[in-house]
Amino acid sequence: MGFSLLPKTTDFFVLFNKQAELAVRAATLFARQTRDGRFDAETVNQMRDIEHQADEVAHDLMDRLNKTFITPFDREDIHNLACALDDVIDMIYTISNRMRVYRIDTPDDTLVEFATIIEKSVKTLVTAVEGLKDPKMLQATKDACIEVNRLENVGDTMRDASLARLFENATDPIHIVKWKEIYAFAEEVLDLCEDVVHIVESILVKQA
Amino acid sequence: MGFSLLPKTTDFFVLFNKQAELAVRAATLFARQTRDGRFDAETVNQMRDIEHQADEVAHDLMDRLNKTFITPFDREDIHNLACALDDVIDMIYTISNRMRVYRIDTPDDTLVEFATIIEKSVKTLVTAVEGLKDPKMLQATKDACIEVNRLENVGDTMRDASLARLFENATDPIHIVKWKEIYAFAEEVLDLCEDVVHIVESILVKQA
Amino acid sequence: MGFSLLPKTTDFFVLFNKQAELAVRAATLFARQTRDGRFDAETVNQMRDIEHQADEVAHDLMDRLNKTFITPFDREDIHNLACALDDVIDMIYTISNRMRVYRIDTPDDTLVEFATIIEKSVKTLVTAVEGLKDPKMLQATKDACIEVNRLENVGDTMRDASLARLFENATDPIHIVKWKEIYAFAEEVLDLCEDVVHIVESILVKQA
Repeated sequence: MGFSLLPKTTDFFVLFNKQAELAVRAATLFARQTRDGRFDAETVNQMRDIEHQADEVAHDLMDRLNKTFITPFDREDIHNLACALDDVIDMIYTISNRMRVYRIDTPDDTLVEFATIIEKSVKTLVTAVEGLKDPKMLQATKDACIEVNRLENVGDTMRDASLARLFENATDPIHIVKWKEIYAFAEEVLDLCEDVVHIVESILVKQA
Repeated sequence: MGFSLLPKTTDFFVLFNKQAELAVRAATLFARQTRDGRFDAETVNQMRDIEHQADEVAHDLMDRLNKTFITPFDREDIHNLACALDDVIDMIYTISNRMRVYRIDTPDDTLVEFATIIEKSVKTLVTAVEGLKDPKMLQATKDACIEVNRLENVGDTMRDASLARLFENATDPIHIVKWKEIYAFAEEVLDLCEDVVHIVESILVKQA
Repeated sequence: MGFSLLPKTTDFFVLFNKQAELAVRAATLFARQTRDGRFDAETVNQMRDIEHQADEVAHDLMDRLNKTFITPFDREDIHNLACALDDVIDMIYTISNRMRVYRIDTPDDTLVEFATIIEKSVKTLVTAVEGLKDPKMLQATKDACIEVNRLENVGDTMRDASLARLFENATDPIHIVKWKEIYAFAEEVLDLCEDVVHIVESILVKQA
């Protein structure tokens, strides 16, 4: 191993990967909750555990960032990337928890569709984030960024369609208030995934 | 033209102007849609075209920023200004599109009033942003910033009044849910214009 | 006093303290409004006065920041801390004003509870912010940050519980729309307090 004066800058990549993996666990759990129409204390507590673990990783990452002199890329990009990944997980937890608060326990086709796109987008984030540490992965990283952007557009269209359907068909205003928020949160997850790849893209451009 | 080692830093001003002009096109189209009570596929697609063009300008600007060593002012201010201008256009598109989703096709006096203020504010942004590249324009730039701040306050008052009227008069909760959001978005455009001039003001202070 | 080439960097601490004190005044007034169920023009105007004073302090702080070469800690942290403190006050004003717009003039137990937690959190902010200028206060500052984080978690639980109660018991959708927003704003104040201490914590880590 030897002695090195250089800080172990690769730590950041390890921590980014941990964040991305926790995001995948959250998205996968959310997809299952959605398909089962099951947002009870048990499954929402599982989601909260994931969210807490992610908080700890983000906190650890910020601490190291503030103490590290040499970083693999711009300090601000590291800070923003860690925050953006954490925001994705927070928002998935928020939907899951809100479904429990609203006592919605029947599957909804639109939300199942959203959850599928969210899971795809979050899994693609892993490729985008992993690629940052390996120049040979440049093309795969770029492709992943493009895919996450594409899925965000899919989500926009889905949100518009689901909102139009909701207001056209529903007669119960309380039902509308609940689902309008849930769909907005679901679309927000895809926006937050896009924020992550915007940061990745900006790091790539600077390294070019 | 001769050979120069200096990057063409004025490119940034050209791109800021393009963004500001697209914002004016969006605001003008929105004012027309609002007066006509016409948020159909055709006019909303026109709005989306403007929003797409603005995305490309913003993307181009970020690329150049990441590749340029010497910038006319703080990199972060350039980044924030480009994002803030883009946010204005995005939000105008969001209202326009949401009106279509909600199938609202009758003019609403309050929204017409909002659209007028938005158009004024966005046109004033052009002066504020153009002034950045020309020290002789300093007073005009400052005045434009003050005017955009003033219009944001007008918007706040308008939002409060329209919200009070909405909750006092409406009996249909679904109508309330829709318009509450639309008015909030309209006021948000004016907030976002204020964000733009805050960045402009902070650039001016640093150059003083 | 003598002549000094050094800018009076302690000005920043004086201004942060002013902001924190105005936040306490806002939180205390909000707690009183809430207990009295009195959100009329008179008390909301008092709140607006506080918010205006806070705007001026924030503006003054930004101006000095842009003109000061040597700062007691990272420029960006100073900027973010000033913005974050201002956001706390803005959000308290927003709730107060929205209560007036919605013409709600009866006390609500949940909001009284929120106001109590908000007042606690904002008063704890004062300790956190004051501690920044005095290394001997390090432990008290850290403890204050932990307490604000804890109160944010209390607020989350309170928001979930109040939302669940609201949707379970209320039959009037318009009532739901109003209070859903008010509770969300109240919880947002606690989030914004947490943002303040996150910035404080990050400054502490860098100084360690």
